[in-house]
Amino acid sequence: MNPHLAPVDLAKAYRLVNHGPTVLVSARHAGVDNVMAAAWCCALDFDPPKLTVVLDKSTSTRELIEGSGRFAVQVPTVAQLQLVNAVGNHSLREAPDKLAQAGVELFELSDQPVPLVAGCSAWLVCDLINEPHNQDSYDLFIGEVVGAWADDRVFRDGRWHFEDADPAWRSLHHVAGGHFYAIGEALKA
Amino acid sequence: MNPHLAPVDLAKAYRLVNHGPTVLVSARHAGVDNVMAAAWCCALDFDPPKLTVVLDKSTSTRELIEGSGRFAVQVPTVAQLQLVNAVGNHSLREAPDKLAQAGVELFELSDQPVPLVAGCSAWLVCDLINEPHNQDSYDLFIGEVVGAWADDRVFRDGRWHFEDADPAWRSLHHVAGGHFYAIGEALKA
Repeated sequence: MNPHLAPVDLAKAYRLVNHGPTVLVSARHAGVDNVMAAAWCCALDFDPPKLTVVLDKSTSTRELIEGSGRFAVQVPTVAQLQLVNAVGNHSLREAPDKLAQAGVELFELSDQPVPLVAGCSAWLVCDLINEPHNQDSYDLFIGEVVGAWADDRVFRDGRWHFEDADPAWRSLHHVAGGHFYAIGEALKA
Repeated sequence: MNPHLAPVDLAKAYRLVNHGPTVLVSARHAGVDNVMAAAWCCALDFDPPKLTVVLDKSTSTRELIEGSGRFAVQVPTVAQLQLVNAVGNHSLREAPDKLAQAGVELFELSDQPVPLVAGCSAWLVCDLINEPHNQDSYDLFIGEVVGAWADDRVFRDGRWHFEDADPAWRSLHHVAGGHFYAIGEALKA
């Protein structure tokens, strides 16, 4: 277990995605694990925290979420650039060894029945709030965040510390294709 | 008129928000204009392009959007940090001169009946797709992007050029309170 993994107060969990990072979405159903990349993930509410994520009908991860009613959103880092690009470009349907090929190492928290991706900076475990119209018409899924954790080397005291951490911890923000931006300089209004 | 304002192909409009910037939302109804800041805005579809934005029931801008069925999402810059913080912290209800106080200069495109904020890097004009359940239960609004423009000093050839532009053009990514990050370094997987 990563000794830097620390729980995040649920009332502050929105801050893990408030700056708009591209995320990894993971799920497990009927013994199958999968992970996909998603640029279209967004906070929806503070308390209880909720988020939205867009999951195309072609993705295997969507099926796992519809089956299990649970998923995790995690914030990957610059150090995981190739992993994010790989899980975003390959489908479990065509490549059953997708996760191994991409170098994904999964772990679990003892009371959370969902696979989590090691090496990320933050993890949000979500219960699906079933909204069939949104899911069918817009590929739009709503989750209630029921647990949140972060790596205290880059998120602690309820906020990101990108400015003090190794640049390899910075979040990724997808542009298109294999192009991303890292998050940059801290600013105070 | 800003001579650098250039139309963006609607099929590429999602790229204006794909990297997760905090945006400004503007609307006009019954002769009233308003602008608010929103960190919770996200692409929803490619073609026709759609996006989601979360608008709290306390905001005046939400009323204008419900009344007019139209709004604009624009991407503000590091140069507009104080403006973004000001329109995000003051309500038109309490401060009728909010826009002037914040230094907001509005402009219009001749065929677009919605006020736009000068000095931003990109503008997406949206028709509200009315979804009462989402609006009432989650404060979640869906817009179809019917027109998109960008400043060609920072977005051209269908993509952002933050890495080549003055750092004052970088997008803002809200953390909490008056704290933001600017978008950072370009990375290629």
